[in-house]
Amino acid sequence: MAMKMKAAVFVEPGRIVLDDKPIPDVGPLDALLRVTTTTICGTDVHILKGEYPVARGLTVGHEPVGVIEKLGSAVKGYCEGQRVIAGAITPSGWSNACLCGCGAQDGAGTAHGWKPLGGWRLGNTIDGCQAEYVLVPDAMVNLAPVPDELSDEQVLMCPDIMSTGFGGAERGGIRIGDTVAVFAQGPIGLCATAGAKLSGATTVIGVDRLASRLEIARRMGADHVIDSSRVDPVEEILRLTGGRGVDVAIEALGIQATFEACLRVLRPGGTLSSLGVYSGDLTIPLGAFAAGLGDHQIVTTLCPGGKERMRRLMAVIQAGRVDLGPMVTHRFKLDDIERAYDLFGHQRDGVLKVAITP
Amino acid sequence: MAMKMKAAVFVEPGRIVLDDKPIPDVGPLDALLRVTTTTICGTDVHILKGEYPVARGLTVGHEPVGVIEKLGSAVKGYCEGQRVIAGAITPSGWSNACLCGCGAQDGAGTAHGWKPLGGWRLGNTIDGCQAEYVLVPDAMVNLAPVPDELSDEQVLMCPDIMSTGFGGAERGGIRIGDTVAVFAQGPIGLCATAGAKLSGATTVIGVDRLASRLEIARRMGADHVIDSSRVDPVEEILRLTGGRGVDVAIEALGIQATFEACLRVLRPGGTLSSLGVYSGDLTIPLGAFAAGLGDHQIVTTLCPGGKERMRRLMAVIQAGRVDLGPMVTHRFKLDDIERAYDLFGHQRDGVLKVAITP
Amino acid sequence: MAMKMKAAVFVEPGRIVLDDKPIPDVGPLDALLRVTTTTICGTDVHILKGEYPVARGLTVGHEPVGVIEKLGSAVKGYCEGQRVIAGAITPSGWSNACLCGCGAQDGAGTAHGWKPLGGWRLGNTIDGCQAEYVLVPDAMVNLAPVPDELSDEQVLMCPDIMSTGFGGAERGGIRIGDTVAVFAQGPIGLCATAGAKLSGATTVIGVDRLASRLEIARRMGADHVIDSSRVDPVEEILRLTGGRGVDVAIEALGIQATFEACLRVLRPGGTLSSLGVYSGDLTIPLGAFAAGLGDHQIVTTLCPGGKERMRRLMAVIQAGRVDLGPMVTHRFKLDDIERAYDLFGHQRDGVLKVAITP
Amino acid sequence: MAMKMKAAVFVEPGRIVLDDKPIPDVGPLDALLRVTTTTICGTDVHILKGEYPVARGLTVGHEPVGVIEKLGSAVKGYCEGQRVIAGAITPSGWSNACLCGCGAQDGAGTAHGWKPLGGWRLGNTIDGCQAEYVLVPDAMVNLAPVPDELSDEQVLMCPDIMSTGFGGAERGGIRIGDTVAVFAQGPIGLCATAGAKLSGATTVIGVDRLASRLEIARRMGADHVIDSSRVDPVEEILRLTGGRGVDVAIEALGIQATFEACLRVLRPGGTLSSLGVYSGDLTIPLGAFAAGLGDHQIVTTLCPGGKERMRRLMAVIQAGRVDLGPMVTHRFKLDDIERAYDLFGHQRDGVLKVAITP
Repeated sequence: MAMKMKAAVFVEPGRIVLDDKPIPDVGPLDALLRVTTTTICGTDVHILKGEYPVARGLTVGHEPVGVIEKLGSAVKGYCEGQRVIAGAITPSGWSNACLCGCGAQDGAGTAHGWKPLGGWRLGNTIDGCQAEYVLVPDAMVNLAPVPDELSDEQVLMCPDIMSTGFGGAERGGIRIGDTVAVFAQGPIGLCATAGAKLSGATTVIGVDRLASRLEIARRMGADHVIDSSRVDPVEEILRLTGGRGVDVAIEALGIQATFEACLRVLRPGGTLSSLGVYSGDLTIPLGAFAAGLGDHQIVTTLCPGGKERMRRLMAVIQAGRVDLGPMVTHRFKLDDIERAYDLFGHQRDGVLKVAITP
Repeated sequence: MAMKMKAAVFVEPGRIVLDDKPIPDVGPLDALLRVTTTTICGTDVHILKGEYPVARGLTVGHEPVGVIEKLGSAVKGYCEGQRVIAGAITPSGWSNACLCGCGAQDGAGTAHGWKPLGGWRLGNTIDGCQAEYVLVPDAMVNLAPVPDELSDEQVLMCPDIMSTGFGGAERGGIRIGDTVAVFAQGPIGLCATAGAKLSGATTVIGVDRLASRLEIARRMGADHVIDSSRVDPVEEILRLTGGRGVDVAIEALGIQATFEACLRVLRPGGTLSSLGVYSGDLTIPLGAFAAGLGDHQIVTTLCPGGKERMRRLMAVIQAGRVDLGPMVTHRFKLDDIERAYDLFGHQRDGVLKVAITP
Repeated sequence: MAMKMKAAVFVEPGRIVLDDKPIPDVGPLDALLRVTTTTICGTDVHILKGEYPVARGLTVGHEPVGVIEKLGSAVKGYCEGQRVIAGAITPSGWSNACLCGCGAQDGAGTAHGWKPLGGWRLGNTIDGCQAEYVLVPDAMVNLAPVPDELSDEQVLMCPDIMSTGFGGAERGGIRIGDTVAVFAQGPIGLCATAGAKLSGATTVIGVDRLASRLEIARRMGADHVIDSSRVDPVEEILRLTGGRGVDVAIEALGIQATFEACLRVLRPGGTLSSLGVYSGDLTIPLGAFAAGLGDHQIVTTLCPGGKERMRRLMAVIQAGRVDLGPMVTHRFKLDDIERAYDLFGHQRDGVLKVAITP
Repeated sequence: MAMKMKAAVFVEPGRIVLDDKPIPDVGPLDALLRVTTTTICGTDVHILKGEYPVARGLTVGHEPVGVIEKLGSAVKGYCEGQRVIAGAITPSGWSNACLCGCGAQDGAGTAHGWKPLGGWRLGNTIDGCQAEYVLVPDAMVNLAPVPDELSDEQVLMCPDIMSTGFGGAERGGIRIGDTVAVFAQGPIGLCATAGAKLSGATTVIGVDRLASRLEIARRMGADHVIDSSRVDPVEEILRLTGGRGVDVAIEALGIQATFEACLRVLRPGGTLSSLGVYSGDLTIPLGAFAAGLGDHQIVTTLCPGGKERMRRLMAVIQAGRVDLGPMVTHRFKLDDIERAYDLFGHQRDGVLKVAITP
């Protein structure tokens, strides 16, 4: 095994560069993966721009497909050479947060209390996977074997955006026959659209400002699409539903306008499932929520992790229930990852997701 | 039966007066009650002040205990002379909202869509019960017989504040061993405190600015009380919970400060159960919620109605599991209801709830 | 309106005959429907054979599609001439059972307690719909308008078997990516198969002894089918799932063998959703359940009624998410209903469901 | 550290003897506890009698209170000298069963499928805690620190019977105001009684054949007790509930009679929560369940494990919400454990639980 590897490293705001780093040592609970495919997330762009703070020198990336190169001495149930994915969230499995089903909020090791987002470690608080190798902590909880029938690209969305988007649909409590609106059809919104349809929603309404994304939304299962650059989506949704409103509204952008629109299209008793990463305070307008006006609920979901969940997501793909393939619009070698950031960061050429291979 | 009755009528903002009105006619689905005890709600004071709009000439009041004077021709399952209560919310039982368990949002009869708060009719969209007689619509859904063992005053809180406060606790999903904070210990907050304790919460923390209310909070089950006029309740709750935060936070006042404090004391994965009647937009601070930061949920509850629910609430009282008696601090005759409004509206003499009898 | 109508009447065990009966009078809460399409249920055959007791002289049938001929004086929200369906279960909407979401067990009007199956009235305790006209009680709770776009035959399964089959899938708590086995692919099992697929199950396994039904099972969404006349379904399901078992097993036949097979293929923590109508005691084998061996649950579901549910089921059909058309294999005039019973009762000619029109 | 320790060892059916065994070696994920208090479970008596098979030479016992003597090299978050408990169930935390919330069914390490009861390891598949020392596997998931304020005896029921009994109440889905019947008031039934009361049940009915146990049932919260050696509990419960039946029935004995009685007292829509360890097939009588007759559910629960759950149970005790002290009726030294088995196995002298100390 080589002692050095290439890795995409956060140097300072504005600069993520490919650099040499030592291949990490493997602790007793860890697994070292040789990364075969990974991708860039919108959050990585926030890191690049300095909008989300990480330590300088950190390797970024949290969506790994790879092969087990070396297992920690205490790891059972896996073998070297196995092809696996790990979730973007890699909970310890033993914090109180994990044990009450909230692994994304893993606060393992803190003296007091929970550490919000503590379960997101790869490319956040420890080195990530935009590299030749990545060390996955608490491997027994976090590694999910990839079925032979599935290619790397087919499972590339499982670690993060499929888990997040489907999680948003699941937390919405969608029932057979429900109507669901999904605000914004970026990668996560597209996954939420697919997840809502798969959950039995009869009418899925996709909203975005880009015609190209609305087209893919239809392929992901949207029954209606609304171009919010042309019409008021709230009015249009109320028209489509005969004034009834939607049972579940999913927010997948992270701005006030879509958050508020979600509240305004909900039927009483409906659920707003919030996935977006907001960058400021949110306002709940009096008329839309206050005073138990609608017996509404608002739920937030951070990408739920864990290998059992990864297994279920891959089962969905293997069964052909959803094809996220159309989302991989561009492909790069790790050596060219800086160009990939340039393209993805500026959202050029209709890019949705890029695949990065060694 | 006399043709005229006395009723507390909203004349104009600032004026609710006792006046003569005809005793209502009884439609096929209705029941006419002779009111034996009723009370004044904070919402009635909002009506009095003109802050919540109702039609001029409306009889106010939505918390009736009474005896069935006359049943509609299509009403089955009751008999005249029976002592009953009706919920503040009197859903039709046949709207789509009712049929999906959301009767408080009953929109029966509207051409399109749901009418928010449509289930609240007494003293809102039809004549209420601060009168000698009240007509209860859809009687078969809404009348709950009062066990002989219970006095009028013992069940006087069931139609509204006990239903609302307990509903807030129930919607919070409290588990045995949980820690719950209840912000504000007015009548509804006190009921939420009692409901949280009864649901198995191990540590119930009551917050208010009035020492007298904190004393009653202890009697309702609060294990700790925090005087928010003296200490910062967020800091104090985090201290009491060793930095862990609470599993469920209940908002029972309806202002930004308490709403925000609820979010700030929640553990990740925790639930904010909102009962307050807000009078302006709400702000969700970035650090307290956004971005799935905590896998939180926010739920709102409007007083859940229905006779089966009323039955359960009365069962709780009959079993001696809770005694809401201490909440009735003052008693008035209907003839003196204007004085009762004066006392209650100005919150004088430590008033919590008043009992009004004929 | 004619004073007499034709109706299929239970005369004695072995004999259901077409006879003249008076057109019923309409009470204040009722609606009289002119039946445009109906069908025969397996339960009706049990009645015919005397295996399920009903009063002699009763009109059978509980799956009506029709047009409102006359509304009761207290009925709001509908108009005469409207095309509607009513559920097989017609709960009153005002019993305690209804108000806690269990309308099929409606015990309205009983002095004490609940009356099991009390919500099933049409063709059970009151005259049913295999007739020119049918009186639907508590019309406001039970009539669901049929969208113009849908034909009578398209919605003919909604009142009973689609509601029951989908209800079995819903009560199973199926999650995206789950594996579900459905034992027996008669009309209800086929609906359960469709409902399981629509709920996000990734792998649906249909079991039956008839190749013809397994073929339709595939069209309804089964990913695998097992001919239990040739192989042991328990072994085959464990093989297909790599020994893991299924997340949810649905029983849709009502015999010991399938009930027990369901338990034997469940993964720990899995759910057995039981829809079958059993005709004897059931045995739970020690090794399959006892001692919390699997943290299993067993749930039973009687066709859930109510117009809001009917609305959702029709929305599923209107959206093209499922096509139950292939289930109508034969068509008869009401005048020939005795021949229809003969065919359906003996399960000849591959019959699944028959459509009966005036 | 001494190299040898005393341990209660299963020699052959009929013989558990105190013997010398080596103190176990500590693997990287383990913790070695010095046992300060433990107890004997009914299951241990089944082992003694040869009714539940374990390996000869195994140390029995699965309810440890102790002090951490030595931590494995990979264990984080604990320190030596800390006083802790471990659950009777010690899930690995990383099996698929654990990751979907079903740790008691942990099948970690099996090539295919799940291993029923796989989470129960101490005194079942690995050496248990009726010894001077016990090795707890996967310590990070399973050790819960004991608050200083609580004595060993106060938390002695947490690892098994309190967790099981409370789990049965929790799985029943008890709501405020519900009526609950608990069949059999042995140690687990008494805990279920306490747990039902704590969950908000208004009327808890305890059933047993021993007057002495019914007395303790009252102390644990039973509102009514029924001596089933004198009256038919089904009739009596239907009488007490005015024919309505109970919302939840908890089976805590493990025989056909109580299982069947549970079904017969359930209201439609009610839940049978089954805790008993059955020793033969069970029969579900046709009239009590079949055909969705009651929209019932049956749930089984094996003692739910995990340190977060242990924390919650201890919080309940610390808050004084329940006092399980009266259950410890006898105390023995480890040297006398054979006498303790004799007393407990023959249920002499009104024994409920014994405390064993070094």
